[in-house]
Amino acid sequence: MAAFAPLALAESQTDNPTMLHTIDVDLHHQIANWQNIAPYAPAGLRHRLARPGGPPLARHGFKMVGPQFGAAPRPIDANGNIGNPAADPAWVKAEYLDKRGVDLAILTGPLLSLGVQPNQDMAAAIATAINDWTLATWVRPFRCFKGSILVAHQDPAQAVAEIDRLGDDPGMVQVLIGSASETPLGRRQFHPIYEACVRNHLPLALHIGGEGAGMSPPSTAVGHPTTYFEWYASLPQVYMAHIMSMVTEGVFEKFPTLKVILYEGGIFWLPHIMWRFDKNWKAQRSETPWVKEPPSAYILRHFYHTTYPLEQSSPSELSELLEMVEGQRTLLFASNYPNWELGDPFEMIEGLPKELRRRVLAENAHALYGERLLHSHAH
Amino acid sequence: MAAFAPLALAESQTDNPTMLHTIDVDLHHQIANWQNIAPYAPAGLRHRLARPGGPPLARHGFKMVGPQFGAAPRPIDANGNIGNPAADPAWVKAEYLDKRGVDLAILTGPLLSLGVQPNQDMAAAIATAINDWTLATWVRPFRCFKGSILVAHQDPAQAVAEIDRLGDDPGMVQVLIGSASETPLGRRQFHPIYEACVRNHLPLALHIGGEGAGMSPPSTAVGHPTTYFEWYASLPQVYMAHIMSMVTEGVFEKFPTLKVILYEGGIFWLPHIMWRFDKNWKAQRSETPWVKEPPSAYILRHFYHTTYPLEQSSPSELSELLEMVEGQRTLLFASNYPNWELGDPFEMIEGLPKELRRRVLAENAHALYGERLLHSHAH
Repeated sequence: MAAFAPLALAESQTDNPTMLHTIDVDLHHQIANWQNIAPYAPAGLRHRLARPGGPPLARHGFKMVGPQFGAAPRPIDANGNIGNPAADPAWVKAEYLDKRGVDLAILTGPLLSLGVQPNQDMAAAIATAINDWTLATWVRPFRCFKGSILVAHQDPAQAVAEIDRLGDDPGMVQVLIGSASETPLGRRQFHPIYEACVRNHLPLALHIGGEGAGMSPPSTAVGHPTTYFEWYASLPQVYMAHIMSMVTEGVFEKFPTLKVILYEGGIFWLPHIMWRFDKNWKAQRSETPWVKEPPSAYILRHFYHTTYPLEQSSPSELSELLEMVEGQRTLLFASNYPNWELGDPFEMIEGLPKELRRRVLAENAHALYGERLLHSHAH
Repeated sequence: MAAFAPLALAESQTDNPTMLHTIDVDLHHQIANWQNIAPYAPAGLRHRLARPGGPPLARHGFKMVGPQFGAAPRPIDANGNIGNPAADPAWVKAEYLDKRGVDLAILTGPLLSLGVQPNQDMAAAIATAINDWTLATWVRPFRCFKGSILVAHQDPAQAVAEIDRLGDDPGMVQVLIGSASETPLGRRQFHPIYEACVRNHLPLALHIGGEGAGMSPPSTAVGHPTTYFEWYASLPQVYMAHIMSMVTEGVFEKFPTLKVILYEGGIFWLPHIMWRFDKNWKAQRSETPWVKEPPSAYILRHFYHTTYPLEQSSPSELSELLEMVEGQRTLLFASNYPNWELGDPFEMIEGLPKELRRRVLAENAHALYGERLLHSHAH
């Protein structure tokens, strides 16, 4: 276990966007070469990870369109070739974090479809390898990076073991699951995962991206979308389904300290979910007597949301919505680095009410993740 | 063709809820006995409709919970047995419409899973039989009832034929499709249905209810819900998916006069859909160059919404949301009669801003459905 040395956040934060003191909860570090990951896998599976192009992973047919990486910086070598802007931690620190005034970034990696891979042992081995590689090459050498314990939730027992294996490492600040899933996340088989999160004092992060791949049902409730544009716009629907499943199955009555972060889903759908759900609850709760409070109470207490991408609205509409969803407490700054196709994540939050900026940029994340976020974790 | 005799709407409408002058766009008339429907089916299929319990129809496992029919009136026979409150048109007129001051009701029937029945010929025959039975027993004898042309959209050619068969009957005011679907409704195979709607000057109505039955995918994008409570709360997600499909596939560029009514989905999710979609469109529209305007423009211009159930919010939150979605023009009063488990539909709209009541209760429906709504259709 590493020594605990608090990392000071600057006392006087400023509104100058070039000098923000900021916690970015969503930095997608990339795997430039799977041969670097393979040594962290069990001996019997190493050769599968080390294949050119990486291990055999089911993919969906939706590939990002739009200007690749948008305004994100990118490395250019001596021959003018453009490299991956999220593959080298030292470069990411120098060219993104330091230049944008980001103090800390939580790593969310490249593998958002792990939970819908049919080969569950392979998926669990990949999770373990990526976690150890992340700790060794990103988190231990750089105090500005914190890790997520990636797990493959389709085999809850292996996921629980992985959470317990790394749960007291101060370099890890949350458990990460892809929101793509064969079954809704409220189902009983997943409760041991939530128990492990609570036992290890870790929030649970869900991230969209694997929907429609592998064992996932079609990525909408009426079948497969046609284009990336349609697919991407539909993704927050999986969060709605997971929220309803987790609330109706009583997850938050069983695990009252569990916190869940929903990445890249926006916020404007929350009032609908909360208030349709409350209304239904009045008439229909006989079926789920363990749901003791109106669903909106669980949703406001247990779920957090991220800024990339915030829906494109007027500042006054945004203010109204933020009030409805208690955004002053539940909204976290997320850059989604290096995937800035939808715009610069700092410009994206310019419409936020001024009094919320500090909270969204750093204080809400600090309150959620706690002291672990500020502890030194270098060995 | 019937003579056209305008049915006058009262000039001076009142806010007294017992004396409302109102158009109810959602009255679910019920089939008390399938033997009454069978004679309207083709000879070869009549015996299948006439079976005890009706024709063989795939069903999902989610049955309504909560107080059956809520505050809706219900018939009680001499022996004290409670009957179905929506099976007898004369009784429905006397006990619901007349007592609540409803001038006109649009019939939406009991069959919301028709579009996911595997046997497409059977589904088309059932649609035709119900349409003719509705005209003969509800619409022709009572000028207060208007019909919907129910179609089974999984066979677009038969659906188009049915729309053209009844499209100029002034007793029919819209085309009705269950929103449960094997594929998203923007797909090209459905465009002839929209062309037929436009050709016959009929809006298209979608109604939730069959999700998860028959050929439908699981009723969420992450699998099957567990309870009715969870299932029902998730249903508006299918509207989100259909909207995104119809906009991205260019339905409204091809059919600029098509109007679509989304029944029983609420409205608070719309700002999310519009503004996430607009933001994505800026970066991703190269994939769908025919989507020429920001998606919110199509959504506001082409979609209408209903009041049962409105999300449970404060009046000020409701006002803010209504402004965002142009509710003064796009919101229609729908009672969902006789399924009032979630509350009295008239009480449900008490939080509406006063200046919107007349519009929602009658004027918006009149503007949408046009003069056809007010024409006499009795033969």
